[in-house]
Amino acid sequence: MTREELIKEIKIKKSFLCVGLDPDINKLPKHLLQEDDPIFEFCRQIIDATSPYCVSFKPNTAFFEAYGLSGVVSLEKTIKYIKQEYPHHFLIADAKRGDIGNTSGMYAKAFFNRLHADAITVAPYMGSDSVKPFLEFEGKWTILLALTSNEGAKDFQLDEGKVGPLYKNVLRVSKEWGTIYNMMYVVGATQAKTLTEIRSIVPNHFLLVPGVGAQGGSLADVCKYGLIRNDIGLLINLSRSIIYADSGFDFAKASGIEAKKVSDEMGTYF
Amino acid sequence: MTREELIKEIKIKKSFLCVGLDPDINKLPKHLLQEDDPIFEFCRQIIDATSPYCVSFKPNTAFFEAYGLSGVVSLEKTIKYIKQEYPHHFLIADAKRGDIGNTSGMYAKAFFNRLHADAITVAPYMGSDSVKPFLEFEGKWTILLALTSNEGAKDFQLDEGKVGPLYKNVLRVSKEWGTIYNMMYVVGATQAKTLTEIRSIVPNHFLLVPGVGAQGGSLADVCKYGLIRNDIGLLINLSRSIIYADSGFDFAKASGIEAKKVSDEMGTYF
Repeated sequence: MTREELIKEIKIKKSFLCVGLDPDINKLPKHLLQEDDPIFEFCRQIIDATSPYCVSFKPNTAFFEAYGLSGVVSLEKTIKYIKQEYPHHFLIADAKRGDIGNTSGMYAKAFFNRLHADAITVAPYMGSDSVKPFLEFEGKWTILLALTSNEGAKDFQLDEGKVGPLYKNVLRVSKEWGTIYNMMYVVGATQAKTLTEIRSIVPNHFLLVPGVGAQGGSLADVCKYGLIRNDIGLLINLSRSIIYADSGFDFAKASGIEAKKVSDEMGTYF
Repeated sequence: MTREELIKEIKIKKSFLCVGLDPDINKLPKHLLQEDDPIFEFCRQIIDATSPYCVSFKPNTAFFEAYGLSGVVSLEKTIKYIKQEYPHHFLIADAKRGDIGNTSGMYAKAFFNRLHADAITVAPYMGSDSVKPFLEFEGKWTILLALTSNEGAKDFQLDEGKVGPLYKNVLRVSKEWGTIYNMMYVVGATQAKTLTEIRSIVPNHFLLVPGVGAQGGSLADVCKYGLIRNDIGLLINLSRSIIYADSGFDFAKASGIEAKKVSDEMGTYF
Protein backbone atom coordinates (compact mmCIF):
# COMPACT_ATOMS: atom_id res chain seq x y z
CA MET A 1 0.00 0.00 0.00
CA THR A 2 1.40 3.40 -0.95
CA ARG A 3 1.44 6.47 1.25
CA GLU A 4 -1.17 8.09 -1.00
CA GLU A 5 -3.47 5.09 -0.69
CA LEU A 6 -3.11 5.07 3.08
CA ILE A 7 -3.87 8.78 3.36
CA LYS A 8 -6.87 8.33 1.08
CA GLU A 9 -8.26 5.58 3.34
CA ILE A 10 -7.71 7.76 6.38
CA LYS A 11 -9.59 10.64 4.80
CA ILE A 12 -12.47 8.48 3.61
CA LYS A 13 -12.96 7.04 7.09
CA LYS A 14 -11.94 10.14 9.02
CA SER A 15 -10.01 7.74 11.19
CA PHE A 16 -6.36 6.91 11.75
CA LEU A 17 -7.05 4.11 14.18
CA CYS A 18 -4.99 0.94 14.10
CA VAL A 19 -6.49 -2.01 15.99
CA GLY A 20 -3.82 -4.11 17.67
CA LEU A 21 -4.57 -7.84 17.72
CA ASP A 22 -2.99 -9.26 20.89
CA PRO A 23 -5.02 -12.43 21.48
CA ASP A 24 -4.35 -13.87 24.92
CA ILE A 25 -6.11 -17.20 25.42
CA ASN A 26 -6.62 -16.38 29.12
CA LYS A 27 -8.56 -13.24 28.27
CA LEU A 28 -10.74 -14.67 25.51
CA PRO A 29 -14.52 -14.88 25.97
CA LYS A 30 -15.15 -18.33 27.43
CA HIS A 31 -17.64 -19.41 24.77
CA LEU A 32 -14.94 -19.12 22.09
CA LEU A 33 -12.84 -21.83 23.69
CA GLN A 34 -15.13 -24.44 22.14
CA GLU A 35 -14.19 -23.28 18.64
CA ASP A 36 -11.64 -25.21 16.57
CA ASP A 37 -9.38 -22.18 16.50
CA PRO A 38 -10.41 -19.80 19.29
CA ILE A 39 -7.57 -17.37 18.59
CA PHE A 40 -8.53 -16.94 14.95
CA GLU A 41 -12.23 -16.81 15.72
CA PHE A 42 -11.61 -14.08 18.30
CA CYS A 43 -9.53 -12.06 15.85
CA ARG A 44 -11.98 -12.57 13.01
CA GLN A 45 -14.90 -11.23 15.00
CA ILE A 46 -12.88 -8.27 16.31
CA ILE A 47 -11.73 -7.49 12.77
CA ASP A 48 -15.28 -7.60 11.38
CA ALA A 49 -16.65 -5.45 14.18
CA THR A 50 -13.94 -2.78 14.17
CA SER A 51 -13.12 -2.59 10.44
CA PRO A 52 -15.52 0.29 9.69
CA TYR A 53 -13.75 2.46 12.27
CA CYS A 54 -10.10 1.71 11.64
CA VAL A 55 -7.70 1.88 8.73
CA SER A 56 -5.16 -0.61 9.98
CA PHE A 57 -4.79 -3.91 11.82
CA LYS A 58 -1.69 -4.89 13.73
CA PRO A 59 -1.38 -8.52 14.78
CA ASN A 60 1.34 -8.85 17.39
CA THR A 61 3.16 -12.00 16.36
CA ALA A 62 4.28 -12.89 19.90
CA PHE A 63 0.72 -13.55 21.01
CA PHE A 64 0.33 -16.09 18.24
CA GLU A 65 3.80 -17.63 18.35
CA ALA A 66 3.32 -18.31 22.06
CA TYR A 67 0.98 -21.14 21.07
CA GLY A 68 3.47 -22.81 18.80
CA LEU A 69 2.36 -24.30 15.52
CA SER A 70 -1.34 -23.84 16.16
CA GLY A 71 -0.62 -20.19 16.96
CA VAL A 72 1.28 -19.73 13.73
CA VAL A 73 -1.66 -21.28 11.89
CA SER A 74 -3.96 -18.78 13.63
CA LEU A 75 -1.64 -15.91 12.66
CA GLU A 76 -1.53 -16.93 9.02
CA LYS A 77 -5.31 -17.36 8.93
CA THR A 78 -5.79 -13.95 10.56
CA ILE A 79 -3.47 -12.21 8.12
CA LYS A 80 -5.02 -13.95 5.13
CA TYR A 81 -8.48 -13.05 6.38
CA ILE A 82 -7.58 -9.38 6.62
CA LYS A 83 -5.94 -9.31 3.20
CA GLN A 84 -8.92 -11.04 1.64
CA GLU A 85 -11.82 -9.34 3.35
CA TYR A 86 -10.28 -5.94 4.03
CA PRO A 87 -7.64 -5.33 1.37
CA HIS A 88 -7.75 -1.57 1.95
CA HIS A 89 -6.71 -1.90 5.60
CA PHE A 90 -3.01 -1.36 6.23
CA LEU A 91 -1.68 -4.62 7.64
CA ILE A 92 1.19 -4.35 10.12
CA ALA A 93 3.02 -7.44 11.34
CA ASP A 94 4.15 -6.35 14.78
CA ALA A 95 7.16 -8.62 14.98
CA LYS A 96 9.94 -6.27 16.17
CA ARG A 97 12.51 -8.20 14.21
CA GLY A 98 16.05 -7.21 13.30
CA ASP A 99 19.14 -9.32 12.72
CA ILE A 100 22.27 -9.34 10.58
CA GLY A 101 21.58 -8.64 6.91
CA ASN A 102 21.00 -12.10 5.51
CA THR A 103 18.73 -12.97 8.44
CA SER A 104 16.70 -9.77 8.20
CA GLY A 105 16.29 -10.59 4.53
CA MET A 106 14.76 -13.94 5.49
CA TYR A 107 12.31 -12.23 7.84
CA ALA A 108 11.42 -9.68 5.16
CA LYS A 109 10.59 -12.44 2.70
CA ALA A 110 8.52 -14.25 5.30
CA PHE A 111 6.37 -11.29 6.22
CA PHE A 112 6.19 -9.42 2.91
CA ASN A 113 6.24 -12.10 0.23
CA ARG A 114 4.66 -15.03 2.00
CA LEU A 115 2.22 -13.36 4.35
CA HIS A 116 1.67 -10.24 2.26
CA ALA A 117 1.84 -7.88 5.21
CA ASP A 118 2.10 -4.21 4.23
CA ALA A 119 4.49 -3.40 7.05
CA ILE A 120 6.65 -4.90 9.75
CA THR A 121 7.99 -3.41 12.95
CA VAL A 122 11.78 -3.57 13.26
CA ALA A 123 14.18 -2.98 16.17
CA PRO A 124 17.05 -0.56 15.40
CA TYR A 125 19.77 -1.79 17.78
CA MET A 126 21.76 -3.69 15.13
CA GLY A 127 21.87 -0.73 12.76
CA SER A 128 21.63 -0.11 9.03
CA ASP A 129 22.36 -3.54 7.60
CA SER A 130 19.76 -5.09 9.88
CA VAL A 131 17.10 -2.64 8.65
CA LYS A 132 17.87 -2.07 4.98
CA PRO A 133 16.87 -5.57 3.78
CA PHE A 134 13.31 -4.71 4.81
CA LEU A 135 13.41 -1.52 2.74
CA GLU A 136 14.11 -3.31 -0.50
CA PHE A 137 10.53 -4.49 -0.99
CA GLU A 138 8.51 -2.29 -3.34
CA GLY A 139 5.28 -1.04 -1.80
CA LYS A 140 6.19 -2.37 1.66
CA TRP A 141 6.93 -0.49 4.86
CA THR A 142 9.46 -0.71 7.66
CA ILE A 143 8.29 0.68 10.98
CA LEU A 144 11.32 1.29 13.14
CA LEU A 145 11.15 1.44 16.94
CA ALA A 146 12.23 4.90 18.06
CA LEU A 147 10.63 5.80 21.39
CA THR A 148 8.51 3.03 22.83
CA SER A 149 5.66 3.41 25.30
CA ASN A 150 6.92 1.11 28.07
CA GLU A 151 8.76 1.97 31.28
CA GLY A 152 11.97 0.38 30.00
CA ALA A 153 12.12 2.96 27.20
CA LYS A 154 13.99 5.11 29.73
CA ASP A 155 16.78 2.60 30.16
CA PHE A 156 18.52 3.17 26.83
CA GLN A 157 16.33 5.14 24.43
CA LEU A 158 16.72 8.28 26.53
CA ASP A 159 20.49 7.82 26.98
CA GLU A 160 22.04 11.21 26.41
CA GLY A 161 24.65 11.08 23.67
CA LYS A 162 26.63 13.87 22.08
CA VAL A 163 23.65 14.95 20.02
CA GLY A 164 20.83 14.26 22.45
CA PRO A 165 19.02 11.10 23.46
CA LEU A 166 19.51 7.83 21.60
CA TYR A 167 16.01 7.71 20.12
CA LYS A 168 16.59 11.04 18.38
CA ASN A 169 19.81 9.73 16.94
CA VAL A 170 17.93 6.66 15.72
CA LEU A 171 15.51 8.99 13.94
CA ARG A 172 18.25 11.21 12.52
CA VAL A 173 20.46 8.38 11.26
CA SER A 174 17.79 5.97 10.05
CA LYS A 175 15.70 8.47 8.11
CA GLU A 176 18.51 8.50 5.55
CA TRP A 177 18.05 4.77 4.94
CA GLY A 178 14.59 5.09 3.46
CA THR A 179 11.97 7.66 2.59
CA ILE A 180 8.63 8.87 3.87
CA TYR A 181 7.20 6.38 1.38
CA ASN A 182 8.65 3.25 2.95
CA MET A 183 9.51 4.09 6.57
CA MET A 184 7.50 4.91 9.66
CA TYR A 185 8.46 5.15 13.32
CA VAL A 186 7.05 3.77 16.53
CA VAL A 187 6.67 6.63 18.99
CA GLY A 188 4.87 5.96 22.27
CA ALA A 189 2.01 8.23 23.29
CA THR A 190 3.04 8.28 26.91
CA GLN A 191 5.53 11.00 26.00
CA ALA A 192 3.18 12.99 23.76
CA LYS A 193 4.93 16.32 24.24
CA THR A 194 8.15 14.92 22.85
CA LEU A 195 6.25 14.57 19.57
CA THR A 196 7.04 18.24 18.93
CA GLU A 197 10.75 17.46 19.04
CA ILE A 198 10.24 14.29 17.03
CA ARG A 199 8.37 16.24 14.37
CA SER A 200 11.34 18.61 14.11
CA ILE A 201 13.47 15.62 13.02
CA VAL A 202 10.91 13.66 10.99
CA PRO A 203 8.33 16.25 9.96
CA ASN A 204 6.67 14.12 7.30
CA HIS A 205 7.04 10.48 8.32
CA PHE A 206 4.04 8.53 9.46
CA LEU A 207 4.26 7.64 13.15
CA LEU A 208 2.75 4.50 14.63
CA VAL A 209 1.70 5.52 18.11
CA PRO A 210 1.03 2.93 20.83
CA GLY A 211 0.29 3.79 24.42
CA VAL A 212 -3.11 5.45 24.04
CA GLY A 213 -5.76 3.61 26.03
CA ALA A 214 -4.63 0.86 28.41
CA GLN A 215 -1.17 2.44 28.73
CA GLY A 216 -2.56 5.87 29.63
CA GLY A 217 -1.58 8.13 26.72
CA SER A 218 -3.96 10.86 25.55
CA LEU A 219 -5.35 10.87 22.02
CA ALA A 220 -5.85 14.64 22.15
CA ASP A 221 -2.21 15.22 23.09
CA VAL A 222 -0.91 12.93 20.37
CA CYS A 223 -3.00 14.76 17.79
CA LYS A 224 -2.02 18.17 19.14
CA TYR A 225 1.70 17.49 18.87
CA GLY A 226 1.90 14.84 16.16
CA LEU A 227 -0.61 15.49 13.37
CA ILE A 228 0.66 16.62 9.99
CA ARG A 229 -1.51 19.12 8.18
CA ASN A 230 -3.20 17.45 5.15
CA ASP A 231 -1.40 14.11 5.34
CA ILE A 232 -2.36 13.29 8.97
CA GLY A 233 0.86 11.27 9.39
CA LEU A 234 -0.36 9.25 12.37
CA LEU A 235 -1.58 5.73 12.97
CA ILE A 236 -2.71 5.46 16.55
CA ASN A 237 -2.77 1.93 17.85
CA LEU A 238 -5.14 0.67 20.51
CA SER A 239 -5.09 -2.96 21.51
CA ARG A 240 -6.33 -4.01 24.92
CA SER A 241 -8.89 -1.23 25.46
CA ILE A 242 -10.63 -2.24 22.24
CA ILE A 243 -10.22 -5.98 21.91
CA TYR A 244 -10.97 -6.73 25.56
CA ALA A 245 -13.78 -4.18 25.92
CA ASP A 246 -16.09 -7.03 26.99
CA SER A 247 -15.67 -10.74 27.62
CA GLY A 248 -19.25 -11.91 27.05
CA PHE A 249 -21.09 -13.16 23.98
CA ASP A 250 -21.21 -9.62 22.61
CA PHE A 251 -17.48 -8.99 22.96
CA ALA A 252 -17.05 -8.06 19.30
CA LYS A 253 -19.92 -5.63 19.38
CA ALA A 254 -18.34 -3.99 22.43
CA SER A 255 -15.03 -3.74 20.55
CA GLY A 256 -16.82 -2.09 17.67
CA ILE A 257 -18.39 0.44 20.02
CA GLU A 258 -15.00 1.26 21.56
CA ALA A 259 -13.39 1.58 18.14
CA LYS A 260 -16.21 3.87 17.01
CA LYS A 261 -15.69 6.10 20.06
CA VAL A 262 -12.02 6.55 19.21
CA SER A 263 -12.77 6.99 15.54
CA ASP A 264 -15.42 9.63 16.34
CA GLU A 265 -12.88 11.58 18.38
CA MET A 266 -10.39 11.28 15.52
CA GLY A 267 -13.08 12.58 13.18
CA THR A 268 -12.99 15.96 14.88
CA TYR A 269 -9.49 16.53 13.51
CA PHE A 270 -10.61 16.45 9.86
CA MET B 1 20.88 -26.02 32.23
CA THR B 2 22.84 -24.42 35.07
CA ARG B 3 26.12 -22.55 34.72
CA GLU B 4 27.89 -25.40 36.51
CA GLU B 5 26.46 -27.98 34.14
CA LEU B 6 27.48 -25.90 31.11
CA ILE B 7 31.03 -25.46 32.41
CA LYS B 8 31.21 -29.17 33.13
CA GLU B 9 30.24 -30.01 29.54
CA ILE B 10 32.80 -27.54 28.22
CA LYS B 11 35.54 -29.11 30.30
CA ILE B 12 34.59 -32.66 29.36
CA LYS B 13 34.70 -31.83 25.65
CA LYS B 14 37.48 -29.25 25.83
CA SER B 15 35.31 -27.21 23.51
CA PHE B 16 33.20 -24.11 23.83
CA LEU B 17 31.91 -24.26 20.28
CA CYS B 18 28.33 -23.39 19.50
CA VAL B 19 27.08 -24.52 16.07
CA GLY B 20 24.66 -22.03 14.56
CA LEU B 21 21.89 -23.61 12.51
CA ASP B 22 20.99 -21.15 9.72
CA PRO B 23 19.39 -23.42 7.10
CA ASP B 24 18.97 -21.59 3.80
CA ILE B 25 17.10 -23.70 1.26
CA ASN B 26 19.18 -22.19 -1.56
CA LYS B 27 22.40 -23.42 0.02
CA LEU B 28 21.28 -26.92 0.93
CA PRO B 29 22.88 -29.95 -0.74
CA LYS B 30 20.69 -30.68 -3.74
CA HIS B 31 20.04 -34.31 -2.85
CA LEU B 32 18.27 -33.21 0.33
CA LEU B 33 15.57 -31.39 -1.60
CA GLN B 34 13.87 -34.75 -2.27
CA GLU B 35 13.34 -35.28 1.46
CA ASP B 36 9.95 -34.60 3.05
CA ASP B 37 11.50 -31.94 5.24
CA PRO B 38 14.85 -30.90 3.74
CA ILE B 39 15.45 -28.20 6.35
CA PHE B 40 15.05 -30.59 9.27
CA GLU B 41 17.01 -33.33 7.51
CA PHE B 42 19.87 -30.90 6.87
CA CYS B 43 19.90 -29.76 10.50
CA ARG B 44 19.61 -33.30 11.82
CA GLN B 45 22.65 -34.49 9.91
CA ILE B 46 24.69 -31.40 10.85
CA ILE B 47 23.72 -31.90 14.49
CA ASP B 48 24.72 -35.56 14.48
CA ALA B 49 28.03 -34.85 12.75
CA THR B 50 29.09 -31.88 14.89
CA SER B 51 27.71 -32.88 18.29
CA PRO B 52 30.95 -34.52 19.53
CA TYR B 53 32.83 -31.24 18.97
CA CYS B 54 30.41 -28.64 20.29
CA VAL B 55 28.59 -27.95 23.52
CA SER B 56 25.78 -25.86 22.11
CA PHE B 57 23.42 -25.54 19.14
CA LYS B 58 21.85 -22.28 18.08
CA PRO B 59 18.99 -22.48 15.60
CA ASN B 60 18.36 -19.02 14.14
CA THR B 61 14.59 -18.79 14.10
CA ALA B 62 14.47 -16.42 11.10
CA PHE B 63 15.81 -19.07 8.77
CA PHE B 64 12.97 -21.36 9.73
CA GLU B 65 10.20 -18.78 9.99
CA ALA B 66 10.99 -17.61 6.46
CA TYR B 67 9.32 -20.79 5.20
CA GLY B 68 6.11 -20.19 7.07
CA LEU B 69 4.29 -23.05 8.71
CA SER B 70 6.49 -25.74 7.27
CA GLY B 71 9.51 -23.82 8.54
CA VAL B 72 8.04 -23.61 12.02
CA VAL B 73 7.44 -27.36 11.89
CA SER B 74 11.09 -27.84 10.91
CA LEU B 75 12.20 -25.58 13.78
CA GLU B 76 10.14 -27.48 16.33
CA LYS B 77 11.40 -30.81 15.03
CA THR B 78 14.98 -29.58 15.14
CA ILE B 79 14.67 -28.31 18.69
CA LYS B 80 12.94 -31.49 19.86
CA TYR B 81 15.60 -33.58 18.16
CA ILE B 82 18.38 -31.74 19.97
CA LYS B 83 16.63 -31.96 23.35
CA GLN B 84 15.96 -35.65 22.90
CA GLU B 85 19.21 -36.86 21.36
CA TYR B 86 21.64 -34.36 22.88
CA PRO B 87 20.15 -33.22 26.18
CA HIS B 88 23.54 -32.06 27.45
CA HIS B 89 23.98 -29.57 24.62
CA PHE B 90 23.04 -26.00 25.51
CA LEU B 91 20.15 -25.07 23.23
CA ILE B 92 19.92 -21.41 22.21
CA ALA B 93 16.90 -20.09 20.32
CA ASP B 94 18.43 -17.23 18.38
CA ALA B 95 15.28 -15.20 18.06
CA LYS B 96 16.42 -11.69 19.07
CA ARG B 97 13.05 -10.94 20.59
CA GLY B 98 12.07 -8.09 22.91
CA ASP B 99 8.76 -6.33 23.37
CA ILE B 100 6.68 -4.70 26.11
CA GLY B 101 6.43 -6.81 29.23
CA ASN B 102 3.31 -8.86 28.57
CA THR B 103 4.49 -9.63 25.04
CA SER B 104 7.99 -10.62 26.10
CA GLY B 105 6.30 -12.89 28.62
CA MET B 106 4.47 -14.62 25.77
CA TYR B 107 7.72 -15.14 23.88
CA ALA B 108 9.41 -16.48 26.99
CA LYS B 109 6.66 -19.04 27.47
CA ALA B 110 6.86 -20.05 23.81
CA PHE B 111 10.59 -20.67 23.79
CA PHE B 112 11.19 -21.88 27.34
CA ASN B 113 8.06 -23.78 28.30
CA ARG B 114 6.81 -25.06 24.97
CA LEU B 115 10.04 -25.57 23.06
CA HIS B 116 12.26 -26.22 26.09
CA ALA B 117 15.11 -24.07 24.80
CA ASP B 118 17.78 -23.37 27.41
CA ALA B 119 18.33 -19.81 26.24
CA ILE B 120 16.96 -17.12 23.98
CA THR B 121 18.67 -14.10 22.46
CA VAL B 122 16.97 -10.80 23.32
CA ALA B 123 17.34 -7.25 21.95
CA PRO B 124 17.91 -4.57 24.62
CA TYR B 125 16.43 -1.48 22.94
CA MET B 126 13.12 -1.53 24.84
CA GLY B 127 14.82 -1.78 28.23
CA SER B 128 14.28 -3.58 31.52
CA ASP B 129 10.62 -4.53 31.32
CA SER B 130 11.17 -6.06 27.89
CA VAL B 131 13.99 -8.24 29.22
CA LYS B 132 12.97 -9.15 32.76
CA PRO B 133 10.07 -11.48 31.77
CA PHE B 134 12.68 -13.77 30.23
CA LEU B 135 14.67 -13.83 33.46
CA GLU B 136 11.81 -15.23 35.52
CA PHE B 137 12.22 -18.78 34.25
CA GLU B 138 14.18 -21.01 36.57
CA GLY B 139 17.14 -22.70 34.90
CA LYS B 140 16.72 -20.64 31.69
CA TRP B 141 19.01 -18.03 30.17
CA THR B 142 18.62 -14.64 28.55
CA ILE B 143 21.35 -13.71 26.09
CA LEU B 144 21.24 -9.97 25.56
CA LEU B 145 22.64 -8.30 22.45
CA ALA B 146 25.44 -5.96 23.49
CA LEU B 147 27.95 -5.53 20.67
CA THR B 148 26.98 -7.36 17.50
CA SER B 149 29.33 -8.49 14.74
CA ASN B 150 27.71 -6.74 11.78
CA GLU B 151 28.63 -3.45 10.10
CA GLY B 152 25.50 -1.75 11.42
CA ALA B 153 26.73 -2.28 15.00
CA LYS B 154 28.53 1.04 14.53
CA ASP B 155 25.34 2.96 13.86
CA PHE B 156 24.02 3.01 17.41
CA GLN B 157 25.89 0.53 19.61
CA LEU B 158 29.01 2.67 19.49
CA ASP B 159 27.14 5.94 20.09
CA GLU B 160 29.15 7.86 22.66
CA GLY B 161 27.02 8.73 25.67
CA LYS B 162 28.00 10.38 28.94
CA VAL B 163 29.55 7.17 30.17
CA GLY B 164 30.99 5.77 26.96
CA PRO B 165 29.43 3.89 24.08
CA LEU B 166 25.87 2.59 24.22
CA TYR B 167 26.82 -1.10 24.30
CA LYS B 168 28.82 -0.57 27.47
CA ASN B 169 25.88 1.14 29.07
CA VAL B 170 23.72 -1.80 28.02
CA LEU B 171 26.18 -4.09 29.84
CA ARG B 172 26.39 -1.86 32.91
CA VAL B 173 22.66 -1.32 33.32
CA SER B 174 21.41 -4.76 32.34
CA LYS B 175 23.80 -6.78 34.46
CA GLU B 176 21.79 -5.61 37.47
CA TRP B 177 18.64 -7.26 36.08
CA GLY B 178 19.95 -10.77 36.35
CA THR B 179 22.97 -12.74 37.46
CA ILE B 180 25.85 -14.64 35.94
CA TYR B 181 23.59 -17.65 36.37
CA ASN B 182 20.81 -16.51 34.04
CA MET B 183 22.29 -13.88 31.73
CA MET B 184 24.83 -13.90 28.95
CA TYR B 185 25.78 -11.31 26.34
CA VAL B 186 26.25 -11.37 22.59
CA VAL B 187 29.61 -9.79 21.80
CA GLY B 188 30.87 -9.92 18.23
CA ALA B 189 34.35 -11.28 17.56
CA THR B 190 35.07 -8.70 14.90
CA GLN B 191 36.01 -6.33 17.72
CA ALA B 192 37.98 -8.85 19.78
CA LYS B 193 40.19 -6.28 21.51
CA THR B 194 37.16 -4.59 23.00
CA LEU B 195 36.67 -7.82 24.94
CA THR B 196 39.20 -6.49 27.43
CA GLU B 197 36.96 -3.51 28.14
CA ILE B 198 33.88 -5.70 28.14
CA ARG B 199 35.49 -8.03 30.67
CA SER B 200 36.13 -5.02 32.94
CA ILE B 201 32.35 -4.53 33.09
CA VAL B 202 31.16 -8.13 33.05
CA PRO B 203 34.15 -10.14 34.29
CA ASN B 204 32.22 -13.33 34.97
CA HIS B 205 29.31 -13.49 32.53
CA PHE B 206 29.33 -15.99 29.72
CA LEU B 207 29.66 -14.29 26.33
CA LEU B 208 28.14 -15.69 23.16
CA VAL B 209 30.56 -14.66 20.43
CA PRO B 210 29.51 -14.63 16.77
CA GLY B 211 31.70 -13.35 13.95
CA VAL B 212 34.47 -15.96 14.03
CA GLY B 213 34.69 -17.75 10.70
CA ALA B 214 32.64 -16.38 7.80
CA GLN B 215 32.56 -12.91 9.35
CA GLY B 216 36.34 -12.77 9.80
CA GLY B 217 36.90 -12.72 13.56
CA SER B 218 39.84 -14.59 15.07
CA LEU B 219 39.36 -17.42 17.53
CA ALA B 220 42.78 -16.80 19.04
CA ASP B 221 42.00 -13.12 19.69
CA VAL B 222 38.65 -13.90 21.25
CA CYS B 223 40.27 -16.42 23.60
CA LYS B 224 43.14 -14.06 24.41
CA TYR B 225 40.86 -11.22 25.47
CA GLY B 226 37.68 -13.00 26.51
CA LEU B 227 38.45 -16.27 28.33
CA ILE B 228 37.77 -16.48 32.05
CA ARG B 229 40.24 -18.50 34.06
CA ASN B 230 38.62 -21.79 35.22
CA ASP B 231 35.09 -21.04 34.06
CA ILE B 232 35.94 -20.37 30.37
CA GLY B 233 32.99 -17.98 30.06
CA LEU B 234 32.77 -18.15 26.28
CA LEU B 235 30.52 -19.80 23.76
CA ILE B 236 31.93 -19.15 20.31
CA ASN B 237 29.38 -19.51 17.56
CA LEU B 238 30.18 -20.57 14.03
CA SER B 239 27.43 -21.01 11.51
CA ARG B 240 28.17 -20.73 7.81
CA SER B 241 31.78 -21.92 7.88
CA ILE B 242 30.67 -25.15 9.52
CA ILE B 243 27.24 -25.93 8.15
CA TYR B 244 28.09 -25.05 4.54
CA ALA B 245 31.56 -26.59 4.57
CA ASP B 246 30.51 -28.77 1.63
CA SER B 247 27.40 -29.07 -0.50
CA GLY B 248 27.77 -32.66 -1.70
CA PHE B 249 26.57 -35.98 -0.34
CA ASP B 250 29.15 -35.82 2.41
CA PHE B 251 28.18 -32.34 3.59
CA ALA B 252 27.61 -33.47 7.17
CA LYS B 253 30.95 -35.22 7.37
CA ALA B 254 32.62 -32.03 6.11
CA SER B 255 30.78 -30.05 8.81
CA GLY B 256 32.02 -32.49 11.42
CA ILE B 257 35.60 -32.05 10.19
CA GLU B 258 35.30 -28.24 10.36
CA ALA B 259 33.78 -28.43 13.83
CA LYS B 260 36.58 -30.73 14.97
CA LYS B 261 39.21 -28.30 13.68
CA VAL B 262 37.72 -25.47 15.72
CA SER B 263 37.26 -27.74 18.72
CA ASP B 264 40.88 -28.90 18.49
CA GLU B 265 42.06 -25.29 18.52
CA MET B 266 39.82 -24.62 21.51
CA GLY B 267 41.33 -27.65 23.21
CA THR B 268 44.69 -25.88 23.43
CA TYR B 269 43.21 -23.45 25.93
CA PHE B 270 42.48 -26.12 28.53
